[in-house]
Amino acid sequence: MAEDQRPIGVFDSGIGGLSVLKHLVRLMPGERFVYLGDTARVPYGNKSAETVQAYSLQCAAFLLQHNVKMIVVACNTASALALDVLRRDVSVPVLGVIEPAAAEAARATTSRMVGVIGTRATISSNSYARAIEQAAPDKNIIVHSQPCPLFVPLVEEGWLDTPATRLIAGEYLRPMVANHIDTLVLGCTHYPLLKPMLTSMLPDVRLIDCGECTATVAAEMNGPVDDEPITSTPSIYFYLTDNTPSFPILARQFLGISVNEPVRVSVDHLTLPHIEHEES
Amino acid sequence: MAEDQRPIGVFDSGIGGLSVLKHLVRLMPGERFVYLGDTARVPYGNKSAETVQAYSLQCAAFLLQHNVKMIVVACNTASALALDVLRRDVSVPVLGVIEPAAAEAARATTSRMVGVIGTRATISSNSYARAIEQAAPDKNIIVHSQPCPLFVPLVEEGWLDTPATRLIAGEYLRPMVANHIDTLVLGCTHYPLLKPMLTSMLPDVRLIDCGECTATVAAEMNGPVDDEPITSTPSIYFYLTDNTPSFPILARQFLGISVNEPVRVSVDHLTLPHIEHEES
Repeated sequence: MAEDQRPIGVFDSGIGGLSVLKHLVRLMPGERFVYLGDTARVPYGNKSAETVQAYSLQCAAFLLQHNVKMIVVACNTASALALDVLRRDVSVPVLGVIEPAAAEAARATTSRMVGVIGTRATISSNSYARAIEQAAPDKNIIVHSQPCPLFVPLVEEGWLDTPATRLIAGEYLRPMVANHIDTLVLGCTHYPLLKPMLTSMLPDVRLIDCGECTATVAAEMNGPVDDEPITSTPSIYFYLTDNTPSFPILARQFLGISVNEPVRVSVDHLTLPHIEHEES
Repeated sequence: MAEDQRPIGVFDSGIGGLSVLKHLVRLMPGERFVYLGDTARVPYGNKSAETVQAYSLQCAAFLLQHNVKMIVVACNTASALALDVLRRDVSVPVLGVIEPAAAEAARATTSRMVGVIGTRATISSNSYARAIEQAAPDKNIIVHSQPCPLFVPLVEEGWLDTPATRLIAGEYLRPMVANHIDTLVLGCTHYPLLKPMLTSMLPDVRLIDCGECTATVAAEMNGPVDDEPITSTPSIYFYLTDNTPSFPILARQFLGISVNEPVRVSVDHLTLPHIEHEES
């Protein structure tokens, strides 16, 4: 598959998915990437499953128009609510962020008490608890979940470690700390930016970054890395569904590098090409 | 106009506009209302002017299909960014929330130091500062503006007066308190729910609720109230663009009454009927 020159498609409801893209680029520096951020309809985390599925299919249709060989759903809410419909309707492999992070959490825990934090939609879907159970059915892991809807606006406000952010985090995390978790899944692509603060608050807890785990699995799916020299500038094409003046600043924060100007596109009229399903 | 039996149309990006609807219903109990919340694309406060305008025109087109006699834009971001295009393209009177609140603030201040808080988009548009200046051009009012992007998620989380909310509010308001404001415009329809906390933090500052001011102006535009008896249940038809399970709870919180089940509708394909403009 590494000889397949087509780009890898990545989408998110907004810019959080750049924290996943960061690890994809790091592990597959020879690949080209097409990133779509649906900033005209961001966030997905407070919307219904039906709406998140409709939006995700439109994002996938856009990426397929760019002839991608694989789609990474770099959004926890879309991975939780739309992965099944995407895998049913899309003709290339589709990888979400939940299964890789759940598998890593199941491997990492020794106390068998795992915490999961995410948006309200991700947590309500119960996707992480199910995926952790599936990854280690015999380990009897107990999952403590907590929606943290204030973390995304805190990150976007740049309040990565302020007294208010610590107070809110303390409130959110108190029940799982009381339950002696030894592993915490950061089930939202914005949360890796809170890692330094969370590490200092929970020094004995292993933090699982869904972007890091997902990139590892994506690289395995993509096959061995080419011998070609690593270029200093990764080859990424950015598309956003709204004009987002804060993009260059946030991209630098999430991705750690300066990026090209994004192209504004519209996806709300797109539909997927029909694929034949075998009768089962 | 009071003899005009058509309903009054109200729209917002989500459910915040219910805090405006509350005052409309109170002042015009004999009227029928059609409320549209664009919950499939909420919030508008972090989107571009172009996108907010396109979404607002689609909301207006939906309300016109329901034969409304007036449209109240119960959303500060849409009022800031889309009122001009709505007034240009819509055939019935359109009232936003900014002009009424700005006029009231200009009347109320004696120190001539006015604070305005709102979403990032509302504050960046500078609409309140301009409208306050226009309302009292000779009063030389100085406007201190502050975006408070964490207030909406705090309200939706139900954290209306917690230590974290006070800490964040203190951070946001410190510069305008240092400037001795005597009047503060709550330039977002979610903020009236923070009134008890803000009143206790700023006991000497007059808080201006944009919904209250807008309803007063809307009632004046609508003409004298009919003699018909006030029914105990106001006549409101609710439409939302997404399934929003939290709607009944939030509606009770914002509106103060129990409401009918909302109807789910799609508006993203709608266009306005063409109206003729006279050459100017």
